[in-house]
Amino acid sequence: MNLRKLREEVLDANLELVRRGLVLYTFGNASGIDRKNRVVVIKPSGVPYETMKAWHLVITDLEGNVLEGNLRPSSDLATHLVLYKAFPTIGGVAHTHSTAATSWAQARRPIPCFGTTHADYFRGSVPVTKPLTKTQIHSDYELNTGKSIVKSFAGLDPLHYPGVLVAGHAPFCWGVTPADAVHNAVVLEAIARMASETLRANPNARPIDAHLHRKHFLRKHGDSAYYGQREIK
Amino acid sequence: MNLRKLREEVLDANLELVRRGLVLYTFGNASGIDRKNRVVVIKPSGVPYETMKAWHLVITDLEGNVLEGNLRPSSDLATHLVLYKAFPTIGGVAHTHSTAATSWAQARRPIPCFGTTHADYFRGSVPVTKPLTKTQIHSDYELNTGKSIVKSFAGLDPLHYPGVLVAGHAPFCWGVTPADAVHNAVVLEAIARMASETLRANPNARPIDAHLHRKHFLRKHGDSAYYGQREIK
Amino acid sequence: MNLRKLREEVLDANLELVRRGLVLYTFGNASGIDRKNRVVVIKPSGVPYETMKAWHLVITDLEGNVLEGNLRPSSDLATHLVLYKAFPTIGGVAHTHSTAATSWAQARRPIPCFGTTHADYFRGSVPVTKPLTKTQIHSDYELNTGKSIVKSFAGLDPLHYPGVLVAGHAPFCWGVTPADAVHNAVVLEAIARMASETLRANPNARPIDAHLHRKHFLRKHGDSAYYGQREIK
Amino acid sequence: MNLRKLREEVLDANLELVRRGLVLYTFGNASGIDRKNRVVVIKPSGVPYETMKAWHLVITDLEGNVLEGNLRPSSDLATHLVLYKAFPTIGGVAHTHSTAATSWAQARRPIPCFGTTHADYFRGSVPVTKPLTKTQIHSDYELNTGKSIVKSFAGLDPLHYPGVLVAGHAPFCWGVTPADAVHNAVVLEAIARMASETLRANPNARPIDAHLHRKHFLRKHGDSAYYGQREIK
Repeated sequence: MNLRKLREEVLDANLELVRRGLVLYTFGNASGIDRKNRVVVIKPSGVPYETMKAWHLVITDLEGNVLEGNLRPSSDLATHLVLYKAFPTIGGVAHTHSTAATSWAQARRPIPCFGTTHADYFRGSVPVTKPLTKTQIHSDYELNTGKSIVKSFAGLDPLHYPGVLVAGHAPFCWGVTPADAVHNAVVLEAIARMASETLRANPNARPIDAHLHRKHFLRKHGDSAYYGQREIK
Repeated sequence: MNLRKLREEVLDANLELVRRGLVLYTFGNASGIDRKNRVVVIKPSGVPYETMKAWHLVITDLEGNVLEGNLRPSSDLATHLVLYKAFPTIGGVAHTHSTAATSWAQARRPIPCFGTTHADYFRGSVPVTKPLTKTQIHSDYELNTGKSIVKSFAGLDPLHYPGVLVAGHAPFCWGVTPADAVHNAVVLEAIARMASETLRANPNARPIDAHLHRKHFLRKHGDSAYYGQREIK
Repeated sequence: MNLRKLREEVLDANLELVRRGLVLYTFGNASGIDRKNRVVVIKPSGVPYETMKAWHLVITDLEGNVLEGNLRPSSDLATHLVLYKAFPTIGGVAHTHSTAATSWAQARRPIPCFGTTHADYFRGSVPVTKPLTKTQIHSDYELNTGKSIVKSFAGLDPLHYPGVLVAGHAPFCWGVTPADAVHNAVVLEAIARMASETLRANPNARPIDAHLHRKHFLRKHGDSAYYGQREIK
Repeated sequence: MNLRKLREEVLDANLELVRRGLVLYTFGNASGIDRKNRVVVIKPSGVPYETMKAWHLVITDLEGNVLEGNLRPSSDLATHLVLYKAFPTIGGVAHTHSTAATSWAQARRPIPCFGTTHADYFRGSVPVTKPLTKTQIHSDYELNTGKSIVKSFAGLDPLHYPGVLVAGHAPFCWGVTPADAVHNAVVLEAIARMASETLRANPNARPIDAHLHRKHFLRKHGDSAYYGQREIK
């Protein structure tokens, strides 16, 4: 089983979180999945990004058993695994405590779609999970965090909503690759910041019209998308 | 037809958007027009700025037909073309999703002129377009975006108002050259940010007096301008 | 008495304040204590960080008498000394005027725990001191600042609350080492900024549930902590 | 008359405005005065900072007549001259459109002293001028701007209030040297930003107590100051 490429992708995804200013110290983590071999590559827990190498990454099976690596995996591993199992189309997950998105998670409010930047990426508001119960917190906290995310996605295509705000915590994002998951985390941060600034300029700001939302989303997604270069993708 | 110089100017204008922190990923685009030859040079759609070269740029006629270039032009091309046709004095257009200006566009409020920084560039409030109708969104969306901008400029000199907020979307700016369009996009972002901060310091802030506005605008524009160096312009 | 290592640690802690963007000019200072020898190493007053060397640092006893160094110690020395005496488990202190944390100190409001980033570091709200009386200001101001901090910590473990907001002034933070104190100052700034942004997104935001708070705090602290790598700490 | 040193100081002061992020494009300017020779050195109007050299600077007498230099002086020269004449203790002036301070100028509200960072530099609120009348705007605008500043300083020591907010415009700062004027402009920006953030955390925030204000101001100013190093000043 050759995981060298996935290791490199996951390492780069984690380092990109730093380059984009989404993480402070060791907060945040990114992972990737090899669906054929049913293994996940994830950042180790609490290791500084500055000195992180591909061989620090931890490889686990879908139950969280460590297959390769001498370090403990990210404490959020169980959340990542729930997402990979529930969302078969995703290939990477990124979790950050980025300032604006985390603030909306702390505010426990879905981010309304105030403009086309948002509509280009999310088919509707950015969802927010329900707070966990006392029991859910005390046993299998990270697993239950994942379950609460999945629950809030009933009926939604996770690639049409590539991220979520975990109430009182922070965002989790995903995509078809680890790089894509990080890309979506970067965009979510921008969307969240602009939503806050929009409310500052107009406390009564309203979401954009459903037709404009749909138009922009479909300009970038699906069969009739016409943004970007097919030939160079 | 020698477009080498315009190509370089448009490339530099696009890269300047990045250097000034106005664009994230491939959001945003700048173009320039050669009025004599009736051609437009514009950024290709969805190509990363990091690797963009002058030969990636796309050359079209004023109907949007590609004359040179192997890549698809920016999906906002139709908007740029409407602006070039309606505003004969402009030579460049820049579109960004810069944070503060986009937030005002999302707030769908004209930016009031709270100070002389604004008055140095805009003869009045920064205009905001009317939202498009369902029909305008569903057919020729980008063309109709351009038309809605032009409509909101009835009676206004576009060089006295070098930018606009497209409701629920983001700003479009312009100028006598592509570099000038980008310069105005940078200034609009600063104006928008200060307007938000002004309202934070005083929610009842009022626009400046019409005399002060006129004084500052004319200090920089028109025959009696006395800002800058004539000899080094 | 070999204080070379502590000098280096304190120098690095002070320079880290600059690298992290927490200080402007000469605002702010960090110190460390050698409990065995009962001496404190602290930044000199008003010396630019750019040219600061280990030999500029000032070494004092716990009464503030200078033992080594030709420069005057930080004017906040007396505050640091009170903290070292009252909190026997701390090994370093960092004081900054960082933007967001200082703003909460100026607002004279404890920072509510709106999310898990906060809960990972503070066992409850970030405390704020009571304003000093006229008499406390006029004699031994810095000493009384320290005393007011200690007073607001009655019954609290200072390592469970690694920082405080001095009303109308700015934060003081601490930790088991000087580096740890600075780390906590960086995190406090992030917590403070996100708390402000949370209130912007939802003016009625509520603190997180006590169970979630406890869970996160204990994930990182105490005997059953499971965050990070025991083996590489 | 050897003005080489003052030229260098004024050039450096102008470039420091850029390094500190206080100016965009050619907004802002700094000057210095040689009181013995009764001449002022000031930035030329509208020249990019990137290519500015000492020999671009303009030397004028106190009536604004150009004595040396081929370029037109800053359009704000007349304002600087009024300040030099009215405030005999100042040696440098710096004018910026820095974001937070300009926003308070646009809000036309004095910045209340919410904390000790402010109290270390300003003996009270940061003053704001009265808006100019139509007549004052239409003739000798820059001169009248200076006069309105002086008027708002009746009874105040300009070194105890090293800056002002010009209503609807932006801040002017000063100090004993050009470098000092820029230093005060940097600090004013920090004070203004924290004041805005303070109001966000607590819309009912109150200024600090007069005793605390006085204590901090006198810790840094006057005969009993004990901040910094006398020996290395």
